[in-house]
Amino acid sequence: MSIPENQTPEAVTEESPPEHGYTADKDAYLRRLRRIEGQVRGIARMVEEDKYCIDILTQVAAVTKALHAVSLGLVEEHIGHCVVGAASEPDPALRAEAIDIKVKEAADAIGRLLR
Amino acid sequence: MSIPENQTPEAVTEESPPEHGYTADKDAYLRRLRRIEGQVRGIARMVEEDKYCIDILTQVAAVTKALHAVSLGLVEEHIGHCVVGAASEPDPALRAEAIDIKVKEAADAIGRLLR
Amino acid sequence: MSIPENQTPEAVTEESPPEHGYTADKDAYLRRLRRIEGQVRGIARMVEEDKYCIDILTQVAAVTKALHAVSLGLVEEHIGHCVVGAASEPDPALRAEAIDIKVKEAADAIGRLLR
Amino acid sequence: MSIPENQTPEAVTEESPPEHGYTADKDAYLRRLRRIEGQVRGIARMVEEDKYCIDILTQVAAVTKALHAVSLGLVEEHIGHCVVGAASEPDPALRAEAIDIKVKEAADAIGRLLR
Repeated sequence: MSIPENQTPEAVTEESPPEHGYTADKDAYLRRLRRIEGQVRGIARMVEEDKYCIDILTQVAAVTKALHAVSLGLVEEHIGHCVVGAASEPDPALRAEAIDIKVKEAADAIGRLLR
Repeated sequence: MSIPENQTPEAVTEESPPEHGYTADKDAYLRRLRRIEGQVRGIARMVEEDKYCIDILTQVAAVTKALHAVSLGLVEEHIGHCVVGAASEPDPALRAEAIDIKVKEAADAIGRLLR
Repeated sequence: MSIPENQTPEAVTEESPPEHGYTADKDAYLRRLRRIEGQVRGIARMVEEDKYCIDILTQVAAVTKALHAVSLGLVEEHIGHCVVGAASEPDPALRAEAIDIKVKEAADAIGRLLR
Repeated sequence: MSIPENQTPEAVTEESPPEHGYTADKDAYLRRLRRIEGQVRGIARMVEEDKYCIDILTQVAAVTKALHAVSLGLVEEHIGHCVVGAASEPDPALRAEAIDIKVKEAADAIGRLLR
């Protein structure tokens, strides 16, 4: 749940975009993703320059690892922000449903990472 | 072993770069890597635009899967080209050692992918 | 947090063991784990009987997948039970700390599964 | 290809079972699989005794890791034994086909491990 309860819908304007678990670390995520993008470009260059397949594989494994770290960070923030947000919903009936949705989303996302 | 036995070392000039298992599919690999690079850039854009964390995670899982497919292709070609090349070495003494090196390299690379 | 707030500590006796996220599905988990145990025994039998390595690998991959499914179930229940339980802690000071601990535990556990 | 070409089919009797890449390490594999079987039994016991879900997850991750190590050993031996065996086939026509089959089998098996 990204909108604090005391915030009216109108408050969400272009100046205050939706807030997510990762918002506080947005710049750090962007930096990591730029670095991963550069690593992928580096792998393409290795293929272009006919580098040894095993050296390319080492780089691919490094990028996969970096993506796993990004995933893990996003999952952690989803749990700490979205799941906990749902658990803070004051109306018990809405709360149970909100929790179910957020927990199921987290589990599905983790399942996709494990596959 | 990427150089056929009947090829003299001089034949490997700038015009004929070292040949690897993936050389025949080089363009296909480059296309896949460019697409992965674009996907990573798309994820950065999603973070930039404050998209929902679960949607970002879905994209990260897709990129991880695409990288796994690239890895698997490179491993398959390493086995079919480098390991088989080593096994075709005519000198039995050199052959055993060459096979050991190439098989070990393949296993180490697969191990890095599994971790 | 496995103990509902309205339950006094004394209520947790040998007759009512600690309750976890997976308690409701305990029998289902036990059945799945027994099946996995049997699959591992089957793999040992395949090695004993000198079955083809690729067929053994197929079985090992099946067991790994079954274990991933068990993990995913446990993670989902940890999030839905322990994290949500922490978020329901009435004292705000204790709540923030309890949430941090449970979310960190979940993320660490997911990280171990991804590695 | 586990049966040397100069070996007649009759030579494969109960006394000389088919030989695979892992045959030399058969006892070591059996010991590792027995240990894994015991670890799975231990996890079932933890569920039975209502242990904390995160501690159970840690054990499941350890078993998954142990299975990955077994897989990696089998893959390495498949490559070093079956692929190299196919590459040693003296008839070039049969050799190319045998290599293709064994390399494809290895790649498929690795693909199943990565998923």
